[in-house]
Amino acid sequence: MLTNLKKDVLQANLDLFRSGLVTRTWGNASGISRSEGLFVIKPSGVEYDKLTIDDMVVVDLEGKIVEGNKRPSSDTPTHIELYKAFPEIGGIAHSHSTYATIFAQACKEIPCLGTTHADHFSGNIPLTRFLTKEEIEIDYEKNTGSVIVEKFREINYLNMPGVLVAGHAPFCWGKNSTDAVKNSIVLENVAKMALLTLHLNPEIKKLPEYISQKHFQRKHGPNSYYGQKS
Amino acid sequence: MLTNLKKDVLQANLDLFRSGLVTRTWGNASGISRSEGLFVIKPSGVEYDKLTIDDMVVVDLEGKIVEGNKRPSSDTPTHIELYKAFPEIGGIAHSHSTYATIFAQACKEIPCLGTTHADHFSGNIPLTRFLTKEEIEIDYEKNTGSVIVEKFREINYLNMPGVLVAGHAPFCWGKNSTDAVKNSIVLENVAKMALLTLHLNPEIKKLPEYISQKHFQRKHGPNSYYGQKS
Amino acid sequence: MLTNLKKDVLQANLDLFRSGLVTRTWGNASGISRSEGLFVIKPSGVEYDKLTIDDMVVVDLEGKIVEGNKRPSSDTPTHIELYKAFPEIGGIAHSHSTYATIFAQACKEIPCLGTTHADHFSGNIPLTRFLTKEEIEIDYEKNTGSVIVEKFREINYLNMPGVLVAGHAPFCWGKNSTDAVKNSIVLENVAKMALLTLHLNPEIKKLPEYISQKHFQRKHGPNSYYGQKS
Amino acid sequence: MLTNLKKDVLQANLDLFRSGLVTRTWGNASGISRSEGLFVIKPSGVEYDKLTIDDMVVVDLEGKIVEGNKRPSSDTPTHIELYKAFPEIGGIAHSHSTYATIFAQACKEIPCLGTTHADHFSGNIPLTRFLTKEEIEIDYEKNTGSVIVEKFREINYLNMPGVLVAGHAPFCWGKNSTDAVKNSIVLENVAKMALLTLHLNPEIKKLPEYISQKHFQRKHGPNSYYGQKS
Repeated sequence: MLTNLKKDVLQANLDLFRSGLVTRTWGNASGISRSEGLFVIKPSGVEYDKLTIDDMVVVDLEGKIVEGNKRPSSDTPTHIELYKAFPEIGGIAHSHSTYATIFAQACKEIPCLGTTHADHFSGNIPLTRFLTKEEIEIDYEKNTGSVIVEKFREINYLNMPGVLVAGHAPFCWGKNSTDAVKNSIVLENVAKMALLTLHLNPEIKKLPEYISQKHFQRKHGPNSYYGQKS
Repeated sequence: MLTNLKKDVLQANLDLFRSGLVTRTWGNASGISRSEGLFVIKPSGVEYDKLTIDDMVVVDLEGKIVEGNKRPSSDTPTHIELYKAFPEIGGIAHSHSTYATIFAQACKEIPCLGTTHADHFSGNIPLTRFLTKEEIEIDYEKNTGSVIVEKFREINYLNMPGVLVAGHAPFCWGKNSTDAVKNSIVLENVAKMALLTLHLNPEIKKLPEYISQKHFQRKHGPNSYYGQKS
Repeated sequence: MLTNLKKDVLQANLDLFRSGLVTRTWGNASGISRSEGLFVIKPSGVEYDKLTIDDMVVVDLEGKIVEGNKRPSSDTPTHIELYKAFPEIGGIAHSHSTYATIFAQACKEIPCLGTTHADHFSGNIPLTRFLTKEEIEIDYEKNTGSVIVEKFREINYLNMPGVLVAGHAPFCWGKNSTDAVKNSIVLENVAKMALLTLHLNPEIKKLPEYISQKHFQRKHGPNSYYGQKS
Repeated sequence: MLTNLKKDVLQANLDLFRSGLVTRTWGNASGISRSEGLFVIKPSGVEYDKLTIDDMVVVDLEGKIVEGNKRPSSDTPTHIELYKAFPEIGGIAHSHSTYATIFAQACKEIPCLGTTHADHFSGNIPLTRFLTKEEIEIDYEKNTGSVIVEKFREINYLNMPGVLVAGHAPFCWGKNSTDAVKNSIVLENVAKMALLTLHLNPEIKKLPEYISQKHFQRKHGPNSYYGQKS
C-alpha cells in the first residue's frame, strides 16, 4: 500500500536526521497522497538509524491508522490540521533543529536579512502565539496545528513554507516530504545566520524589498530561471 | 561477573564519546546492579577508542574494587554518593560537554525555555554551590556527590535527572547507564539552545508552566503517550 | 574540449562542497582559459554529490554556451564581469558560507584582526553597496559583478582576493579555481574568528599595519618564504 | 635517523589536523631529542593529508637542516627559542585553532573559569605583547619565540604549557609532541568554554584558587591520582 510514498517518506525522514537537524528521535516527516486522502508518517519515538519502510504508518485525515504496526508520531494531529488547511502541500517536516528552535523559544520571527532567506521564504518567518491552557488540555497536538493555521490567515502558505511555534520548534512543508525537509534545512541555516547577523549589527534593517522579491521570484516566480528546466 | 551490565556500561561510555560530549578522556558512565549492590564504571584516564569490556571496573558501594585490573574513574566516590541517595536510579553519566559546562562555569541554572527542555527535565536544571575548602581537602570526589544530594533535598531526582556542579560540569542519571547518557545528550542540546535563546531575547520568560507540565507528562507521566508501547 | 580545465573546476566545486561552505546547491566555482577566452562553470541548481565532468558548462565571455547540456550557474554573468575586469585571475568561487554571509548581511567589512587574515588578505575585506532597484531590474547578476568591480576601483584585486556583496554573500577569486576555493575557505575561517573577536573585545583595534604587512609579504611578496620552492 | 621521533612527530601533526584544530596547512608540531640536540618538525606549507615520514625535517638548535628534502616550517625559529629557554619540554605544537586564536586576536588572557581549565593549566593562560616593528623586521619568527620566553620570566612553563601570541595564535608544549598536541586540544576547548561563559555571565569570577589548585594537583602534582599507574 502506497509503497512509493512510503519509500519517499522514509528517505525524507533519514535526510532530516542525516542533515543534523535531529537530536535523538525529535522530529518527523510525512507525505500525503491527495487522491487517496491518506498520508504516511514516521512512527513515534523510533530511532532513525533503525527505521525501515515497514515502520512507516499510513493514516487518514481523521487520524485513523489505516496500515502499520506502530503508533504514528505523536504530532500526527498537527500534520492533519496542516494537510486540511493547506490543500496544495504534499509533505510536512518537523524538527527541533537548534537555531530555528532558538527563535521559537525566544518568541521572535526570523527577519529576512539576506538573499539566502529571500531565495526560499517570502517575508519574515512567522511565529505563532502560545497555545492557551484550554487548547493544551483539550487536544494539544491538534491545536498546535490550529494556531499555525490561524497565523496563516493573512499569509500565503505557498510563499512561506515554514513557521515557528512559540516555545516549541519549527514546522515546514512543501510539495512533498523531500521538499519539506529541504525547507527545514534552509530554515535552520537562515535562522543561524539571522541570529548572528543581529548580533554583529543590531541596527541592521530587513533586506530591501526589491532585492528579496527579485530573489524569491528568480527561484519560484512564473519566470523563474534558477536550476535546470524540468 | 556482571557481563551484561559491563556490556551495557561499555556501550554507554562509547555512546557518550561518539555523541561528541567528551573531549579526550573527560567523562565516565556507570551502571548498577541493585540486587548485588555492585556497579560497573569506566577506568580512569583510559582513552575511549581503546576501551574494552575487560577494562570495566566492578566496585561496591563502599568503594572497594571487586573486579578489574585498572583504577576506576577518579569520580567513583561521586557516583557512590548518588547511588546511595537516589535509590531508584540505575546509571550515571558525567561529562564536560561544552554548553552544559558553560552554564556550570557561569554559575547559572538552565531555565526551562522550551518544550525540548520540558520533554525531559521538569523545571530549571539546578546548580550546586561551590564546595568549601574543607570539603575539597577532606574528600573532594565524595563531597562533589554530597553537594549534589544537598541540592536535591527539595527536588525530585526522578523528574530532574541532571545537575550542574558549580565551576565544574554536569552529572546526569537515569534508569540505567544508557538512559543517563541519553539525558546527558539532551542536557547538552538544551543548554546550547538556552544560552542562545537568552542571547537573542534577554527578556524571555520561562515557558508557561501549563505547557512545560504537558510536555513532561506526555513523555513521563502515568498517561504518557509518546513512543511505542513497551 | 578543455578537459583538464573541466576536471579542475569539477574538483574545485567538490572541494567547496566538502569543506562545509555550501548548503544544498548554493555556490559555484569556475575556471578560465585566458588563451581561448572560455571558462568552465558549474551547472545551475545541480546537487554536488551528483556532479560529473559532463555536467560542466563551457561559456564564452559574452555569456554564450559553447558546450554543455545544462544551464550554467545563474551567477554566470557575475563571473563574466569579474573575468573581464580582473585580467590576472584564473578562477572564481561563490558560496553562502555561514560567517562570511553574516558579515555581508550585517553590511560590515571584515576588519583585519589577526595574522590568519593578514596571511591571505591585505587589508579589511571590502563590502559592496546594495544594488539599486534599476540595476536589479535590468540585469541582476551582471550588475552584481559591476558593484564588485566598482568597489575595486581603489583596491588591488591581486592583494584582496575576495569581497562581500551587501545583503548577499561572498565572492572569491585566485589564480585558478582551486585557489579561489582555498580563498573562500580562508575567508569563512577569518570571518568566524573576526565575529567572535569583536564579541570578546569590542574595543579591539586592527592588527598593527607592520605586522599584517609582514604576514602578507611573507606568503605573497617578492621575497616570500612560506611553503616549498615551486 | 631519529626514526622513532619522526614517527611520533608525524603522528602528532596528523592528530593536530584530525582534531579539527587546523585549517589547510596552518599549524605544525615538533619533537626534540635532547641527547642529540636535534628536533624533528613538519615541512612548511605541505598539506596534512599528503604528509609522510620522509617529509619530516631534522633541524639542530642553530636552525641548520640536518636531514630532509623540504624546507622546515617557517615557524622553526620560534620552536628553537622555546626549546632553548624551556629545557624540560620535549615537544611543541602551533595552530590557528579558532577559539584560542580569538582570544589572541582580542588580546585577552584566558581566565581560569572551571575545572576543565584547572585540570591542565595552572592559572590564566597568558598573552604575550605585540612584537615591535624592529623585532619583526630583524627576525620575526625568532622574536615570536623571544616574546613568549619574556612572558614566562615569572611563570613556570611546566605548570602552564601554553601561551597566546597577541594578534596571532597559540603555541603549546609538553613532554613530547603528542603531549603538546593534547594541550593544544585542551586549550581550544577551554577557550571556547571561557568565551561563552563570559558571554553568559560577564560578572563571573575566576574559579576559587583552592578548587583550581586541587584539580591541577590531582592530575599533575606529586600525589596525582588521575589515570592509571604508569
